[in-house]
Amino acid sequence: MEQHKITFLPDNIQIKVPAGISIMAAAAEAGVEVEGPCGGKGTCGKCRVKILRSEGDEWVRACQTPVSGDLVVEILQAEVSLYRKSAISLSRATVEPDPGVIKVCLHVEAPSLELQAADAERFLTALGRDNATLSLEAMRSLPGALRQAGGEVTAVLSGTEVLVVEAGNTLERLYGLAVDIGTTTVVAALVDLTSGETLATASASNTQNIFGADVIARIEHAAKGPKGLEQLQRRVLQVINKLVAHLRAETGVDILEIYQAAVVGNTTMSHLFLAVDPANLAPSPFVPGFSRLTEVKAKELGLAIVPQAPVYVLPTIAGYVGADTVGVILATELDHKQGVYLAVDIGTNGEIVLAAHGQLWSCSTAAGPAFEGAQIEFGMRAANGAIEKVKITEEGLQLQVIGNTEPKGICGSGLLDLVAELVRTGVVDPSGRMLSADEGDKLPDTLRRRLSRNDSGNGFILAEASGNRQEAVVITQKDVRELQLAKAAMRAGIDILLTTAGIKVQDIEQVMLAGAFGNYIDKHSALAMGLLPSVPEEKIQSVGNAAGAGAQLALISQGVRQRSVAIARQVVHVELSSRSDFQDKFIDALSLGELA
Amino acid sequence: MEQHKITFLPDNIQIKVPAGISIMAAAAEAGVEVEGPCGGKGTCGKCRVKILRSEGDEWVRACQTPVSGDLVVEILQAEVSLYRKSAISLSRATVEPDPGVIKVCLHVEAPSLELQAADAERFLTALGRDNATLSLEAMRSLPGALRQAGGEVTAVLSGTEVLVVEAGNTLERLYGLAVDIGTTTVVAALVDLTSGETLATASASNTQNIFGADVIARIEHAAKGPKGLEQLQRRVLQVINKLVAHLRAETGVDILEIYQAAVVGNTTMSHLFLAVDPANLAPSPFVPGFSRLTEVKAKELGLAIVPQAPVYVLPTIAGYVGADTVGVILATELDHKQGVYLAVDIGTNGEIVLAAHGQLWSCSTAAGPAFEGAQIEFGMRAANGAIEKVKITEEGLQLQVIGNTEPKGICGSGLLDLVAELVRTGVVDPSGRMLSADEGDKLPDTLRRRLSRNDSGNGFILAEASGNRQEAVVITQKDVRELQLAKAAMRAGIDILLTTAGIKVQDIEQVMLAGAFGNYIDKHSALAMGLLPSVPEEKIQSVGNAAGAGAQLALISQGVRQRSVAIARQVVHVELSSRSDFQDKFIDALSLGELA
Repeated sequence: MEQHKITFLPDNIQIKVPAGISIMAAAAEAGVEVEGPCGGKGTCGKCRVKILRSEGDEWVRACQTPVSGDLVVEILQAEVSLYRKSAISLSRATVEPDPGVIKVCLHVEAPSLELQAADAERFLTALGRDNATLSLEAMRSLPGALRQAGGEVTAVLSGTEVLVVEAGNTLERLYGLAVDIGTTTVVAALVDLTSGETLATASASNTQNIFGADVIARIEHAAKGPKGLEQLQRRVLQVINKLVAHLRAETGVDILEIYQAAVVGNTTMSHLFLAVDPANLAPSPFVPGFSRLTEVKAKELGLAIVPQAPVYVLPTIAGYVGADTVGVILATELDHKQGVYLAVDIGTNGEIVLAAHGQLWSCSTAAGPAFEGAQIEFGMRAANGAIEKVKITEEGLQLQVIGNTEPKGICGSGLLDLVAELVRTGVVDPSGRMLSADEGDKLPDTLRRRLSRNDSGNGFILAEASGNRQEAVVITQKDVRELQLAKAAMRAGIDILLTTAGIKVQDIEQVMLAGAFGNYIDKHSALAMGLLPSVPEEKIQSVGNAAGAGAQLALISQGVRQRSVAIARQVVHVELSSRSDFQDKFIDALSLGELA
Repeated sequence: MEQHKITFLPDNIQIKVPAGISIMAAAAEAGVEVEGPCGGKGTCGKCRVKILRSEGDEWVRACQTPVSGDLVVEILQAEVSLYRKSAISLSRATVEPDPGVIKVCLHVEAPSLELQAADAERFLTALGRDNATLSLEAMRSLPGALRQAGGEVTAVLSGTEVLVVEAGNTLERLYGLAVDIGTTTVVAALVDLTSGETLATASASNTQNIFGADVIARIEHAAKGPKGLEQLQRRVLQVINKLVAHLRAETGVDILEIYQAAVVGNTTMSHLFLAVDPANLAPSPFVPGFSRLTEVKAKELGLAIVPQAPVYVLPTIAGYVGADTVGVILATELDHKQGVYLAVDIGTNGEIVLAAHGQLWSCSTAAGPAFEGAQIEFGMRAANGAIEKVKITEEGLQLQVIGNTEPKGICGSGLLDLVAELVRTGVVDPSGRMLSADEGDKLPDTLRRRLSRNDSGNGFILAEASGNRQEAVVITQKDVRELQLAKAAMRAGIDILLTTAGIKVQDIEQVMLAGAFGNYIDKHSALAMGLLPSVPEEKIQSVGNAAGAGAQLALISQGVRQRSVAIARQVVHVELSSRSDFQDKFIDALSLGELA
């Protein structure tokens, strides 16, 4: 078969591929990262790449463009968002740092013909800890470290194992990494393990998305054989390692000063992170390969921190209630609360936890990625250029855009606001149907002129094409349907959990909204759309990326890691698929309006 | 600089290198194995490779041939010797197999909507062992294994860790690998861990030799930086993995059925195997990086057996008395003996152990590789074509050649025989000087006509050029000097140890000759040359590759591994370099004749 050479910029990676396969497939083969949250369906447009040609460059969608000759292709790097300190605002005053990994500075006697003892023996004598053992890395680092600073070294220990030995006194530098692997977005925080303070947080798309937007698509890709599983693991590690590189640049902390990591994610993400086949999560009875708190070494995964560093993957509750939900419970302390609390983590999969009088229930529901901006025509993550809030007034549309730039797309919170406002003003009816351009007679002029129609049906123009932007930003009938399905799934799950626990809406003391989306959501819109049960607005609290916050707490405290084990054992999981009442509640919840 | 493309056959590995570097350096760069025990000096001729040209192939020495154009080079694969069963004959009736690694067959309950527990949880419940943990590999193998044989699986445990989980009942297959890493030769034995029986043994040259023939040269190469150390480690792993491949082909045992390994070697070899910098072994006070019994995972090294398999590197006694000597003590049970026993392991480095009335002494001495056939013009390992025994009678020279083929070279035992006979017949005088061709008057005709002279001085022809062999097999004056130095070093060490312990030669109950060389040595020649003290011939016993046998015992028994730890603590090491009497004894021992 004819072969063509593709050169991917900016990393100048070359590969030969058969003619006719897509540029996206060529990139996957070459291990080059191209975003593609729609999974190669050609609908999301996120995989746009630039083909460099002497006669003028050409922008194409990588998943839709077959290779038909030697090409030079420039890839837009997946965007990394970086925050100083933490992106979350949870107090962790109640958790005293006790990360497990510690540093000890000591002086080791020099050898002589009278003391020919091995470096390791003289070191262990100076360390003076019973049962201490040296990792292979520690054995390797010891001869050099001992001779650099006159015998003064700093030992890094995890339990009885010496992970590594450093020259001189490095007691002041002890860092850890907390990671929240979302199906759509990966967040990593660099934490000072001595103070417990977060130094910086970074997030980026989970580039596994080129193999599909949701966990089922990822599981199917993994089922294609060991190579599929390996590709998925490699991609998430690439993303995390890229985040680490950004955190390092931001803070000046070296990767070899990161001695421990704690990881949360949904159950599928935990499996893919460890390259354990998630195949049995897809069919009933949705069985994970593992569920306990798992400790592995960074080098077993290719995580670019200290190779011998312990990496803790928090325990999971069920096939679709993962370590991320355990993280939410840790961060919100639902396991310590009396009274009735509802925690909702809105993501591609929605996880719901109910704490009622000392007992915990959980369920999960497949919301789809609409709330994260994926599978929405102009959907995007909550990054610069995203419309995050929408109001419709007599003057027309008021858009709040992240970074105060020209709007490039719309993120989850903006989408919820927009649909709520479109329902309120009659552009969309409560069944979710959007007016066509012909039906705008009773609308004010400011709205009517925004009704549009294209190949994919009715639409509503949020922002006209202008300047650098070649296309108008539009919400389509299909987008409204995506949101409608997502919110119905979330709401039905909440209702089932309340029913199971015998809790009435008025008993709820607080509704906690977790997840990046929950952080920016307009409470009024959430209630107006019936996404949440009708509680007074002041009972709704955004708790930010509570899953990630839980990972940070587990990172800095052995006690919290033990708590995570207890939580995973204690939670009563409600399997929605075995509930005959779920379909009824789902259909009830499709209606766009406040529900009791 | 001009670049040329070199293609190495048979593996078709291509590399571009600058013009002018040697083919040997190009091979090293490409990671292609070329033997070269003389360390690139151009003296051993072991690096002969074939340059394939359309006008006719050309044999060259890789270390002496600069790259001057694109080349296709065929490499002779380093020869692997293979034996059914063990190459050694030690009884191990006293050691009951208790390898540490065990197999357990169990039935794991199938999941259901009522039992959604993770695979790992159901497995651990069935296993029913407290504190059992799963390695990452076990977690990865579990989902598949559980579903292949209706829930019947076999767990492989080392201590409390489940290394791997296999489908069905595989209790009958439990194997281990014992490795003896010599400076010159690497030996690996495949052992049935249930019965303790050796299934097959394989040996090959240690291809680290392209970086130098002795440990000092290897240490110097490692000191060139991390890449040097990495090259040395990679080479020894390549050799071991090649031996494993041969053992696998010979026995039908899969590499994923080898669950444990035990390794001995001199201290430098242990360091290079683990990639711990041996730099401080070279200068006084000769300090190792580590000395304890060390356990690492096979995958940490790239050893091609079960990735999670524990690899035990036996403890070392001193910088130049390594785990191989501990292996000799284990196999000969010197640590349990009453009375006086002398064990001599003759290799590139000679190690000597004296057991006297329940106490153990050791020393080591740099004999050089002459006994292993290296740095001898026609020296070779004890392989097909090697002259292994020599007698001079009235009819002339009687040669015993391994494999009964035409002689290609001479191995250590043949060399010792030959020099003893040359001294007896007056061809070489006791000071080591060989007669020149002009001085042969008083010799019988059968010997006189064998005296020769070439660029490197006087020589003695063992076999004329004939048939396939283009060159005569010759022993040179220089070869005699190499042997003389080697035997003097060994003998001086023995004498120092006896003096230190206050033992007289007549007190010795037995002299044990360890090492491949010791196995084939002619006792009469060893005494005649003064290599050994003058004991009655019947007190000399060859114990074969006792170091390797010790590794096998440590492989099959946790108790033996504990004994190795006690031995390493107990042995009193005598550092020859700090002994003022060593030089005297060495000079005395240079004389070629029986010494008291």
